[in-house]
Amino acid sequence: MKHHDIMPAGQVGRSVPRLEGRQKVTGRAAYTHNLVLPGMLHAKVFRSTIPHGRILSIDTSAAAAVEGVHRVVTGEDLRAIVAEPYFGPAFHDQPALALDKVRHIGEPVAVVLAEDPYIAAEAARLIVATYEELDAVFDEVEAMTSSAIVHDVLKPAGTFPDLKHLVGKRDTNIALDYQLRRGDVDAAFASADHVYEHEFKSQQVMHTPLEPMVSLAAPDGDGLLIHTASQSPSFVRIEIARLLGWPENRVRVKVPYLGGGFGAKLYIKLEALVAILALMVKRPVKLSLTMEEQFFTITKHACTFRIKSAVSSEGRVTGRRCEVYWNGGAYADIGPRVTQKSGFTAPGPYDIENVSIDSYALYTNRPPAGALRGFGIPQLVWAYESHSDMIARDLGLDPVEFRRKNILREGRPHATGTLMHDAEIEGVLEKIAERMNWSAPFDRGEGHIKRGRGIAIAFKASISPTTSVAIVTIAADGCASLAISTVDMGQASDTAMAQILAEVLGLATEDIKVIHPDTDVTPYDMATLGSRSTFHMGHAVRLAGEHARRQLDELAVSLGYAPGAAYAPRDLFKKKYGMQAGNIVGVGSYIPDYTSPAPKTGLSDNITPFWMIGGTGVEIEIDTQTGAIKVLKLINAADLGLPLNPKIVETQLSGAALMQYGFTLFENMLFDEGQLTNGSLADYKIPGLNDIPPVIENHIVDARQTTGPFGAKGVGESATFGVSPAIANAIHDAVGVRLTELPLTPESIFNALRAAKSQAGKA
Amino acid sequence: MKHHDIMPAGQVGRSVPRLEGRQKVTGRAAYTHNLVLPGMLHAKVFRSTIPHGRILSIDTSAAAAVEGVHRVVTGEDLRAIVAEPYFGPAFHDQPALALDKVRHIGEPVAVVLAEDPYIAAEAARLIVATYEELDAVFDEVEAMTSSAIVHDVLKPAGTFPDLKHLVGKRDTNIALDYQLRRGDVDAAFASADHVYEHEFKSQQVMHTPLEPMVSLAAPDGDGLLIHTASQSPSFVRIEIARLLGWPENRVRVKVPYLGGGFGAKLYIKLEALVAILALMVKRPVKLSLTMEEQFFTITKHACTFRIKSAVSSEGRVTGRRCEVYWNGGAYADIGPRVTQKSGFTAPGPYDIENVSIDSYALYTNRPPAGALRGFGIPQLVWAYESHSDMIARDLGLDPVEFRRKNILREGRPHATGTLMHDAEIEGVLEKIAERMNWSAPFDRGEGHIKRGRGIAIAFKASISPTTSVAIVTIAADGCASLAISTVDMGQASDTAMAQILAEVLGLATEDIKVIHPDTDVTPYDMATLGSRSTFHMGHAVRLAGEHARRQLDELAVSLGYAPGAAYAPRDLFKKKYGMQAGNIVGVGSYIPDYTSPAPKTGLSDNITPFWMIGGTGVEIEIDTQTGAIKVLKLINAADLGLPLNPKIVETQLSGAALMQYGFTLFENMLFDEGQLTNGSLADYKIPGLNDIPPVIENHIVDARQTTGPFGAKGVGESATFGVSPAIANAIHDAVGVRLTELPLTPESIFNALRAAKSQAGKA
Repeated sequence: MKHHDIMPAGQVGRSVPRLEGRQKVTGRAAYTHNLVLPGMLHAKVFRSTIPHGRILSIDTSAAAAVEGVHRVVTGEDLRAIVAEPYFGPAFHDQPALALDKVRHIGEPVAVVLAEDPYIAAEAARLIVATYEELDAVFDEVEAMTSSAIVHDVLKPAGTFPDLKHLVGKRDTNIALDYQLRRGDVDAAFASADHVYEHEFKSQQVMHTPLEPMVSLAAPDGDGLLIHTASQSPSFVRIEIARLLGWPENRVRVKVPYLGGGFGAKLYIKLEALVAILALMVKRPVKLSLTMEEQFFTITKHACTFRIKSAVSSEGRVTGRRCEVYWNGGAYADIGPRVTQKSGFTAPGPYDIENVSIDSYALYTNRPPAGALRGFGIPQLVWAYESHSDMIARDLGLDPVEFRRKNILREGRPHATGTLMHDAEIEGVLEKIAERMNWSAPFDRGEGHIKRGRGIAIAFKASISPTTSVAIVTIAADGCASLAISTVDMGQASDTAMAQILAEVLGLATEDIKVIHPDTDVTPYDMATLGSRSTFHMGHAVRLAGEHARRQLDELAVSLGYAPGAAYAPRDLFKKKYGMQAGNIVGVGSYIPDYTSPAPKTGLSDNITPFWMIGGTGVEIEIDTQTGAIKVLKLINAADLGLPLNPKIVETQLSGAALMQYGFTLFENMLFDEGQLTNGSLADYKIPGLNDIPPVIENHIVDARQTTGPFGAKGVGESATFGVSPAIANAIHDAVGVRLTELPLTPESIFNALRAAKSQAGKA
Repeated sequence: MKHHDIMPAGQVGRSVPRLEGRQKVTGRAAYTHNLVLPGMLHAKVFRSTIPHGRILSIDTSAAAAVEGVHRVVTGEDLRAIVAEPYFGPAFHDQPALALDKVRHIGEPVAVVLAEDPYIAAEAARLIVATYEELDAVFDEVEAMTSSAIVHDVLKPAGTFPDLKHLVGKRDTNIALDYQLRRGDVDAAFASADHVYEHEFKSQQVMHTPLEPMVSLAAPDGDGLLIHTASQSPSFVRIEIARLLGWPENRVRVKVPYLGGGFGAKLYIKLEALVAILALMVKRPVKLSLTMEEQFFTITKHACTFRIKSAVSSEGRVTGRRCEVYWNGGAYADIGPRVTQKSGFTAPGPYDIENVSIDSYALYTNRPPAGALRGFGIPQLVWAYESHSDMIARDLGLDPVEFRRKNILREGRPHATGTLMHDAEIEGVLEKIAERMNWSAPFDRGEGHIKRGRGIAIAFKASISPTTSVAIVTIAADGCASLAISTVDMGQASDTAMAQILAEVLGLATEDIKVIHPDTDVTPYDMATLGSRSTFHMGHAVRLAGEHARRQLDELAVSLGYAPGAAYAPRDLFKKKYGMQAGNIVGVGSYIPDYTSPAPKTGLSDNITPFWMIGGTGVEIEIDTQTGAIKVLKLINAADLGLPLNPKIVETQLSGAALMQYGFTLFENMLFDEGQLTNGSLADYKIPGLNDIPPVIENHIVDARQTTGPFGAKGVGESATFGVSPAIANAIHDAVGVRLTELPLTPESIFNALRAAKSQAGKA
């Protein structure tokens, strides 16, 4: 097997069509929703109707009496199987069903098990719960000082030992208080030519995967088999094993394709409940959420960001203070990590000597918030790139020019102290400026139709350190299978990983079989999140392939081939075993180098294995009579290292940008005293085909991640970063009003225009 | 991890209860028969009613018109998917459905696919086929010279390249002609004091696994997923891939527990048909045989053995000629390998200077024969140990003493020239003699109840060379999973393999999770057959465990542990990855050394990696008025090296002996011109609880297989060897008649007694 003998062209860098494309368009691709097991019961959840209260009683008798109902289960019933049925990736704060208290409207309180899902739903409506209501808190800033305490005890999550100090009795809603201190920010403000301070707010939104969450647990020998639409099979296995007090090998977690994840299906969601129920009734139990139930399950953090900058008259930012308040809702989920791991990028991709960051994860009585495409970064960029624009305009500087003065360049230290490498911030900025014809005259519209343009750039670190393991099997006919726990949820990871393996082995990508996650046989992977797979699993796959290839090479030499001579693997097996028999198994395990942040300062000389860089430029049109906004042009650019598969990478960029576009212009979970008032897709608007900009460009900046597999790195989130502030900046450019709260609706534009007019009238 | 720190007692050699015991007794164990897939069609086979003929027409119209029938398929229809749908491990001689010709009554000719299995069965009865009948041959000796030729062309099976010379156009029924020549057998006969020549016949019987054969194929992405009750998942994958012209990785074969196999479920049986059908109808297709249909699917070879010995007056055998005719039925299956690999042991475990063996695999118009527990050895032992007894008695020698004079001892050459090592032939002989109180006076009964006793000893080589591969995964909590393609069909291989791994890793056997065969993820194994798994897979598991342990040791040292210091694996993972994360993967691949037999002589200095030695002694009682026989005592002894699990090994010995006991006394497929006349369990008698000897002893001879994993070797067949001749020898001992055909029924005893009486009357 020599590359130049067998491989007609490079597998990496080729726009291989998605391996699973044919299966998906023909409807043959397997999803958990389609799975039916003999004897399976369907679960339907009964949910809390109050935001905060003590459970006084749950009357399940009417539900239990419905014909076809197998059993009705409350939180207390679960204790027969698991004494402390609390789960969670950061804290074990979330009960599989409410215990003692409810903490948000929509929280699962009881569950009906029935042979038929409609009977289960019907019966669930007959459950009656009474509560002693408690004071509730909904706003993240109020939560800092509120006397309404959502959790008065926190329990440790072993998988994140660095959070252990937060555990125990408490009288605060702060789940995590992250801080970074670099230089002397007070001195910077004291000596600054200009000081700017603004506050920005992001709203709570939902992931809206086309496939709603679904999990199915079934007794399996002496263990448990969980089929689940999860982005993190390895984590589910470890967490369920912990809940049950079992070794990992008694829990088997299988994940087929996912109909989108975006962070909604991370860590552990429905799995704890179905696992306990399956053990309780000794039958398979399936829980499929409706699209609407997802609003109560996991969301994106609402966020308040107070940003203050010291700026010289030449436009150099010399100091920046960031205070970020993350509305984590009733359960922490991975919120503390969002707070911390995105927190340290709050000052933006800028070269600032003096930085102070405080980033707070807060409990409130809203539905829980977790990871959503970007892991907090879009909330931060929304603030710091609006802020950039406001500073530049106030100083009379061109927004591109202002950024040129301040961006982090190769070799310069980031706020943590980590030196920037392989981070084409400049490349992204210049690509957008070029594609926007930034220096050329711009048509500003006429009459009540005004036109404007805006840009934003940003960066994100990879969550670190995390581990990926891959197993490659070469069969006796020379074909290869790749066993990995990376979840293909539409991002085409199967294809990318097969490309890497094909490149290493000198095979065609199309001939690689990717084995989907099954924790009994696909090895550990931290999770499919944060655009980490291409880099981390990519390395593991590369290493596994190289390991397999080394063994093939050695086998060839042992069979008399000259070292380096070409061979067909199938001939080696036939020679060695006398027939088509045997396997070569290659294993690759990868964890990047990393330096933990110093306890008080948050400083680290190696905070991330790679940086994701993304930016967006938009041209918009506003009807000043109605506030109606049209995005005419959406230009995305990103540094993603070498694109393993340029075509797929482009769809990742446009997909990410359009998702954030929905969060920017339309989506908003509206609450009335903790009660979601638009919890259905009839009322909660996501972008449709007619809402999409007529021109979308996706640009891959020429770059290499020198430490990445074949120069590649993650790409799934980079185009989300800049969309919101680019549009807000364009609105200001068009009509002179500055919006500081998302979403940017026609109403908010219209109101801002009216307020500006009335202000102007008064003046 | 140090053995003496963590493991309280040795895992190997401990009678660990079967790991799957609880699942089986509670009915939770998974079997293919229970599997239901959405959209699944049930197949029912329409079978030939003539033994040999050309197909003129197949009228499927009435069957196709039955409501609920999806489709009726003939052999010609299969060609739309696979042009040449012939399969087989030795030759590609067997069509998935008859093409052009039928070759035995019961051969599959067409298949009905329906939503419901009863509708499929009903419709199959409406199919009408017409044939041009051809001359048929049923007897193996007649087949040598018959002009009725079953196959006039043979096609090569790539997996057994050494059979390639047999391929092509032909005018014989000999599928394989194996020969061995050692010394000068003619000279031995010429100079012998005595020459004995006898002929023995064994009947055709069936495996009768409690779980009949069943296979289910389903389209799976761009490939095919086959769930099957198979002993050889790796072979099924390779053979289906060959049939379809696919790479191996597009075929996934999964095997759960088996309800017995005994060789019936080896290589490829129903899988080719369901695979092609599933691709044809693009839906899952399941074919479950009835117990009775198995009579037409695979059986044990009927056999004629002509044995001739040159013996000195002191009782030393100086030469032996063996002519063995194996009735392979209409399709070769693995018969040629039985002919060859058992053939070379036809002279028995005796030290004979001059040997000539001819062993013929023959096609006839009977249902196909393949491997059945013992792989031909019981048919051979039946002959050579009856022959031993006849010689000893003729010479006036004690049968035990006669064997003592002739057995192969440590270091002596076997007929092939391979020197005997780790083969306790003497130990087995002496253990039986001791437990039978052979030298003590023996009660010979009184009146018409006569008592007698008999013994027999034998040996078997392992099929070689064959390969096994194992993958061990250590999870981050230190627990271990073992991925192997060994099939647990009741022999408790899961438990034995877990014991080996536990011993290597210093864990408790009960904590090992054994992953069942799934060719996407469990690596290659030749098959679960011929008692090869303990030795071959045992070594692979040991190597995989050692590989994993080495990596743990290295990880410990890299984390600062002193070399050799004790550690808990979970601590290593936590230290390395900062949390419960990661895997260690160990891989083991094993193939024993082997020397191919020389082309003409059949000689080899290394014909097998180990020898299985078994023997049986019986005490019986015969009612001379009726011929009724009672076996009072059944004593089995075997050299199986170190027993990995003494309790389970004992049940293997008694299970094997009782299986052969059924073949000895009861079971017999009766034919009338190729038509099976007792093809149901109402008419075909297998031993029931009331038929079992009141005393059964199973003795493990103190021995070590020095080349085996922890001194162990295979055990599944050893107790089958001696049962038939021991009983025949006991009959002769009791009533003085010699039976040379199996089974040994009361009728045959009664008739022999009558014949002897009439002979005596005449004399």
